[in-house]
Amino acid sequence: MGTLPSYAEDIDGGGSPSVSMLSEVAAARKITVVGGSIPERSSGQLFNTCCVIGPDGQIKAKHRKLHLFGIDIPGDITFRESDTFTAGQELTVVDTDMGRIGIGICHDIRFPELAMLYRSRGAHLICYPSAFNMSTGKLLWDLMQKSRAVDNQLFAATCSPARDTNSHSEYMIWGHSSLIGPFGEVLAAAGHEEATVIGEIDLSLIEAVREHLPLEMQSRGDLYLLVDVQREHAS
Amino acid sequence: MGTLPSYAEDIDGGGSPSVSMLSEVAAARKITVVGGSIPERSSGQLFNTCCVIGPDGQIKAKHRKLHLFGIDIPGDITFRESDTFTAGQELTVVDTDMGRIGIGICHDIRFPELAMLYRSRGAHLICYPSAFNMSTGKLLWDLMQKSRAVDNQLFAATCSPARDTNSHSEYMIWGHSSLIGPFGEVLAAAGHEEATVIGEIDLSLIEAVREHLPLEMQSRGDLYLLVDVQREHAS
Repeated sequence: MGTLPSYAEDIDGGGSPSVSMLSEVAAARKITVVGGSIPERSSGQLFNTCCVIGPDGQIKAKHRKLHLFGIDIPGDITFRESDTFTAGQELTVVDTDMGRIGIGICHDIRFPELAMLYRSRGAHLICYPSAFNMSTGKLLWDLMQKSRAVDNQLFAATCSPARDTNSHSEYMIWGHSSLIGPFGEVLAAAGHEEATVIGEIDLSLIEAVREHLPLEMQSRGDLYLLVDVQREHAS
Repeated sequence: MGTLPSYAEDIDGGGSPSVSMLSEVAAARKITVVGGSIPERSSGQLFNTCCVIGPDGQIKAKHRKLHLFGIDIPGDITFRESDTFTAGQELTVVDTDMGRIGIGICHDIRFPELAMLYRSRGAHLICYPSAFNMSTGKLLWDLMQKSRAVDNQLFAATCSPARDTNSHSEYMIWGHSSLIGPFGEVLAAAGHEEATVIGEIDLSLIEAVREHLPLEMQSRGDLYLLVDVQREHAS
């Protein structure tokens, strides 16, 4: 984390080598790219940011991580992402050729409310670029993405760096990028090594599962209500 | 389901053999019993009801299932619990010798909002008497209880009937009653056969996990807000 500020890129100013690279690829292949996350420098602040690039090579959306990670186990590990980064202020939903995508970064996946709001904003897929470590990976990686998909009856995708077993870093990566369907089924999954994974998203599955098992209709709006604060303010 | 009304018991009227039995056991052993669920007849309506009995043998709380199950896969299975049962109107939180317990029945576990409200009402443990079948069991049984525990940093317990492999019913039971800790760890679990399972609940783990990983502090009340409607009305 200490060296991250030196890698930070100025996305809005057009000086981001990562975005230039993603943009070239997206335009050359005429595809949408959800481009992981990079440290972004903007107005003297640092954000943990994911760019979505359209088939024309332009940035379609930029998600700044909303929930900064922090852990405090005295004598073992103490880490506060907020010492370095500023949290984003906006949910990110973007319409693409394949459907509507909500974006979350890593720790954002731990908060069910975010996925629920993305569902209510019409997302078909939530993409979570993430980098869990060995302990959180083992306990939570599958669990979190499957429960976000199943609870909201949509697709969830995670993309993780590969594990570097030769690394001397204390933060060894879990890996296992996956695509999960609305029944919680694993549609595609990498191991912990570098890999290209191809999974197909059949949007009709969303309608099918919601018709078969109409959770939204069965839910109890008379007992609980999740407010989308920014949408509420906007309307 | 067709024969269930004939088994229905009048709990409030004192004519419930199931509650009498649970009450005798609870009083004899001086323990709290969360007593699965039975069809309850009350004022001409049927509810799917779970009683919590105190060490004095008295009913401490009665939870009526809030989310009635319904599935509609034409040509395969169509089932509406609401054809027979009426949904309950109240969340159920009960203080016991071991801590504060929230109650949900079966399909109630599918709704993250209920678990979140139980957390905000101070529950240490959510008990879900449930009877998943083979297909929902395989996909969802572990996933649901672990994600409710992990997302809310509390204990979750499920109690299922055992599987009757000789049964001719189309609804074969999954089984696998479990106790899950606030890290998502399995503290005790049955197989699919009849079994007595003993698990220990160390309430200090709740404080530990919430101190180490303060999800509530990291959450974004400026972006989302879950309203507990009845509490809101009461205050």
